[in-house]
Amino acid sequence: MESIDSLGRHILVEAWGCRDDALDDLPGIRQAMVEAAEAAGATVLDVSFRKFAPQGVSGVVIISESHLTIHTWPEHGYAAIDLFTCGERARPWKAFEVLSDFLGADQITTMEIRRGEIGELRRAKKSETDFVYLHEYGGSKQESGF
Amino acid sequence: MESIDSLGRHILVEAWGCRDDALDDLPGIRQAMVEAAEAAGATVLDVSFRKFAPQGVSGVVIISESHLTIHTWPEHGYAAIDLFTCGERARPWKAFEVLSDFLGADQITTMEIRRGEIGELRRAKKSETDFVYLHEYGGSKQESGF
Repeated sequence: MESIDSLGRHILVEAWGCRDDALDDLPGIRQAMVEAAEAAGATVLDVSFRKFAPQGVSGVVIISESHLTIHTWPEHGYAAIDLFTCGERARPWKAFEVLSDFLGADQITTMEIRRGEIGELRRAKKSETDFVYLHEYGGSKQESGF
Repeated sequence: MESIDSLGRHILVEAWGCRDDALDDLPGIRQAMVEAAEAAGATVLDVSFRKFAPQGVSGVVIISESHLTIHTWPEHGYAAIDLFTCGERARPWKAFEVLSDFLGADQITTMEIRRGEIGELRRAKKSETDFVYLHEYGGSKQESGF
């Protein structure tokens, strides 16, 4: 059991060389995204998916624990996926596994970022400045959970 | 005019010390998010916002150019925002400005990540491996546009 030092976990996925028939398949993508949310132990609140002309799909699954999103570029064999969960029980890498299986990508690059790091909360409360643009993110890169 | 070397731009925002009456104000947040999308020059396709008990708001604005999301933790004075746009015309930092004004945060940390970097596309096409988990993201940190 890892310690909880942030409010949320956010996995950014870059999937290249996805199988040809996956990236423009709105019903298939929607089903995979909902299954991904369920695999993560998340509660689905709303889904919204769109198909673009001539190709490409965008979709969001809003979960009690934050959100999952996907945007596809079939012409590049590419999908951008975000898996953002909060709470101790959510398992965002389980969602990743479902989508990875669905996309059948040649190459997947991932980055996990901690959102709402508690250290930042303490720092914000101590801050004497009125407004600070740091332009750098305090999140640390994490290895995947498998 | 910067050169286009990626399919999308993704700004991650960590906002701390937000004004008390902003983070639990669903109508206000929804309005600010839609105004942010419009300020970015994006086309709004769908919106979905939820209020949680006892507090907190989650919301998504799906745009033709990808998505904007927000999740708030009023008890921590914190909001996590994602501004993901594709295409040459979108101005995600304009969206940021609208939301920054709305939240009135003491401290804002941002990171801009390039999604779908074209170099990765070339690399994927040349790849001889069947499947590679890099567990590192090729995106580079970017300074903000203002």
